[in-house]
Amino acid sequence: MAKVISESIEKFYHHYPRVAVVVTAQAGGRDNAMAAAWHVPLSFSPPLYGVAISPKRFTYQLIVDSKQFGINFLPFEAAELIASVGGSQGQEIDKFQRFNIARDKLVKTAVPILKAAYAAYECRLVDDRDYGDHRLLVGEIEVVHWLKEAFTPEGILDLAKVSPALYLGNELYLTASRDSVRRLDREVYGKR
Amino acid sequence: MAKVISESIEKFYHHYPRVAVVVTAQAGGRDNAMAAAWHVPLSFSPPLYGVAISPKRFTYQLIVDSKQFGINFLPFEAAELIASVGGSQGQEIDKFQRFNIARDKLVKTAVPILKAAYAAYECRLVDDRDYGDHRLLVGEIEVVHWLKEAFTPEGILDLAKVSPALYLGNELYLTASRDSVRRLDREVYGKR
Repeated sequence: MAKVISESIEKFYHHYPRVAVVVTAQAGGRDNAMAAAWHVPLSFSPPLYGVAISPKRFTYQLIVDSKQFGINFLPFEAAELIASVGGSQGQEIDKFQRFNIARDKLVKTAVPILKAAYAAYECRLVDDRDYGDHRLLVGEIEVVHWLKEAFTPEGILDLAKVSPALYLGNELYLTASRDSVRRLDREVYGKR
Repeated sequence: MAKVISESIEKFYHHYPRVAVVVTAQAGGRDNAMAAAWHVPLSFSPPLYGVAISPKRFTYQLIVDSKQFGINFLPFEAAELIASVGGSQGQEIDKFQRFNIARDKLVKTAVPILKAAYAAYECRLVDDRDYGDHRLLVGEIEVVHWLKEAFTPEGILDLAKVSPALYLGNELYLTASRDSVRRLDREVYGKR
C-alpha cells in the first residue's frame, strides 16, 4: 500500500499511544498538577527523565522556580483524573482541592506525589532546554515511589495487576492489551 | 497500599510501555537500523522529534556524520523485526540484507524508511545533547510518510486498522487494547 507523503507538517500524532502522566510541581506555597504525554527517559546513570512542557504553563513556572518536579504514572482507572488536571488551569484553581487528589508522603522534594500513582519519580531539575514551542525539562530522579505488587520481580509492570493509562490523542484514553504480551529475546532474533 | 521508596536507582522501567520504533540512518554508503523506545515529540512548530541513543551505537555515529535520521512506527506484527534489529550489530552486518527489510522511496533525506511502517519521519538533525549515558538527538521532521487507512480523519491512529508495537521492557512486546478506548474531553472533566 503506497503511503501519503506530507511535507507541510502541523500537528502530528503518529507517535501515539503514549503513557499519560501527571507532572506535579510546587513553589511559593502553590501546588499544581498537569497532564503530559511528551515524556522520556534519557539516562540510567545518572537516572535522568525528561518532559516537554510549554513555557506558557503554570507548572513550567513552578518547576523553574523550585528546580523540582514529580512524574506520576497512573492506572487507566484514573484516566478521568488525568483529563481533569489536563483541562483546568492551576493559576485559577487549586486542582488538588478541586479534584480531591490524595497525596503520598514526600521523601526528598516538595513536589506532590499522587496516592493513585502506581509509580512516581521525585526529580531535581538539571536542564531546561528550548525546543520550538516547548521546553524540555530534565530531572535527575532522586526517589522512586512504587507499588511493589504492580511490578514483577524484574521490575517490569505486571499487567495482571495494573492497567496503565495511555493517551492516543484527541481526548482518547486507552490501556495496554495484557493478552497480547509476547517475549521476543533480541539475542535470539538478532542472530537469525 | 503503601509504596516502596527507592533512593538508589539503577535500571528503571516504571515508565513503560512505550511505542517501540526503528531508528534508521545512513552515512558513507552504510545503512543501519536500531530499535528504540526512548523517543519523544518536542515541538509542533517547528515539528521536532527526539530520540535518546547511546553514543556507543553505530547508528549514533551514522546520524552524527549525516545529520539525518528516520523514525519508523511499526505494527505489532513487525515486533520480530524490531527484536531482530535490536539484537544485532550494524558494524558487523547489513541488517537490511540479513533481515530482508523492504524500503519505501525517500523524499528529502537519505535515511532508509521501512515499508512495514504505518508512519515514518524523515528528520534533519538540529541538536545533539549529552544526558548521562545517552545523547538526545533532536531532529526537525521534514517529511512524514503515513498510511492513510491507518489513521482517522483527525490524524489519530485507527486501532481497528493498526495495532501499534509497544515495548514493556525485558524483551516483552505487546499492543494497545483497542476495546478499552474512552473519550474523556478535558474541557468537560476540567470543569467538574
